[in-house]
Amino acid sequence: MNILYKSDPERGRQWAALIAARQPAAVFRVWPDIGDAGAVEYLVAWQPPENIMAQFPRLKVLFSVGAGADQFDYDALPPTLPVVRMVEPGIVNSMVEYVTFAVLGLHRDMPRYFQQQRAGLWLPHRVRPAHASRVGVMGLGNLGRAAAGQLAGLGFDCGGWSRTPHVVPGVRCWAGADELDAFLARTDILVCLLPLTADTAGLLDARLFSRLPPDAALVHVGRGAQLNQPDLLQALESRRLRAAVIDVTVQEPLPADHPLWRHDAVWLTPHIASQTQPDSAVTALLDNIRRFERGEAMVGLINRQQGY
Amino acid sequence: MNILYKSDPERGRQWAALIAARQPAAVFRVWPDIGDAGAVEYLVAWQPPENIMAQFPRLKVLFSVGAGADQFDYDALPPTLPVVRMVEPGIVNSMVEYVTFAVLGLHRDMPRYFQQQRAGLWLPHRVRPAHASRVGVMGLGNLGRAAAGQLAGLGFDCGGWSRTPHVVPGVRCWAGADELDAFLARTDILVCLLPLTADTAGLLDARLFSRLPPDAALVHVGRGAQLNQPDLLQALESRRLRAAVIDVTVQEPLPADHPLWRHDAVWLTPHIASQTQPDSAVTALLDNIRRFERGEAMVGLINRQQGY
Repeated sequence: MNILYKSDPERGRQWAALIAARQPAAVFRVWPDIGDAGAVEYLVAWQPPENIMAQFPRLKVLFSVGAGADQFDYDALPPTLPVVRMVEPGIVNSMVEYVTFAVLGLHRDMPRYFQQQRAGLWLPHRVRPAHASRVGVMGLGNLGRAAAGQLAGLGFDCGGWSRTPHVVPGVRCWAGADELDAFLARTDILVCLLPLTADTAGLLDARLFSRLPPDAALVHVGRGAQLNQPDLLQALESRRLRAAVIDVTVQEPLPADHPLWRHDAVWLTPHIASQTQPDSAVTALLDNIRRFERGEAMVGLINRQQGY
Repeated sequence: MNILYKSDPERGRQWAALIAARQPAAVFRVWPDIGDAGAVEYLVAWQPPENIMAQFPRLKVLFSVGAGADQFDYDALPPTLPVVRMVEPGIVNSMVEYVTFAVLGLHRDMPRYFQQQRAGLWLPHRVRPAHASRVGVMGLGNLGRAAAGQLAGLGFDCGGWSRTPHVVPGVRCWAGADELDAFLARTDILVCLLPLTADTAGLLDARLFSRLPPDAALVHVGRGAQLNQPDLLQALESRRLRAAVIDVTVQEPLPADHPLWRHDAVWLTPHIASQTQPDSAVTALLDNIRRFERGEAMVGLINRQQGY
């Protein structure tokens, strides 16, 4: 098998070492060292090169290095080329860690304590039990289900919403546009883990914020384009929302002078909530290639109609 | 039964309502409304009044409102007066939440990301899996065991140390002064949940920090007097420690001009990691009074030799 990797070169070297150990017969190259372009069968990339089929005429599958595959320009890809997003436990675990950190921080009023710290102010507030905080996870794919399960295990009153109905143990679930308002009305801490589609672009806006209870807070770990950033700033200014933890932004990197960086009630991180972990990602990639070569269904295959 | 409560009056009113509902025959008064001092049998307090036996000659038990009872001046208490610390699930759960938040934040390099945020700097760093972070919990009482269990469940390589040997599922345990160095040498994130005793006062000092691996971090949720604050600041300045999350300080409130407030690598909260939850605390108190009245052992009875 002939694999070309086009993403962070340092991680590419880790993938190369892992593949050399596990599948010594495989050819694995890291962009821009493409070798014989005509021999490339599998491309692993965050952003593929232009004119992908002209450059790699024998390409069989395009693999995203990340949990999503919304960054691809599908109009520029042949309609029959299978596109696969990365489903591997390392991504799931690091997302669960980040979401758990953010939700616990919001539940325990840490943005307020950090503001007090900057002012040298020793002022305790009531500690409320986890079951008094109603958390709501939007998006119940493998990331959302794992995060909701962890939060329910910590004692939060955890609900979930998704486009189509899901069952998650210990989590009350709502589904579809008709049930969105009921879900929002009981959600004190909203976690967005939705895939980016035409339906979810711009979904996190003033209208949605207005349906949350007073003092609600947001954890946004979906995609930047789902968030209306001016509406978020306005909601924080007017105290419609009390705080936000934001890992993805419309423009990445976020420009250094953007007001989101310096808002007191915002924790902003540079799209690091979750990353593919080389060890488990290589396992997942090799497993999917074996499935493809045997004619079996690959894990994470994108349904282009659905958009994820 | 006649109970006097001397602590935060707002919480005292919540206790009064809960006791009125569950034990309507009990007399429950909130300081300074002591009623007939000669009738007081049980005192629930953080700081008891002076000359306690002269004021309450029929006092049978002193209950601490908190998880510790080190704040009492035992020389001023009759040697035969039973002293009981608060053991109730509300304290445990909120401590687990705080420690989980702090350890996840340190594991995921959040103090560095918050510094970058203040500088408007979008700079991702590698996400490492939880099993690559070696967490060590000092103190394996009911709080330490619960925190270590939760951290092990999140995938951390979690160890524990205590004065006497303990067994905690999924957590490698060390015990006693002889094994402290071995525990410290493998601990990247140190969590202090020790009781305050003559042995633990000042324990968190330069000598202890020097035995941790490079880039270690501290979560201090024990007692302020266990921490040598100048040594901590020195260890952070010299990068011997990379960050610290501090909930308790030698002097509380910490003076507004203290340098700990404004150190970039410190998260400082005003002793809010855990609080007695009125609902479960009242259950625990009434249960202990029933045990005492039946001549059974109370949960959380202080061994004055041991100091906790």
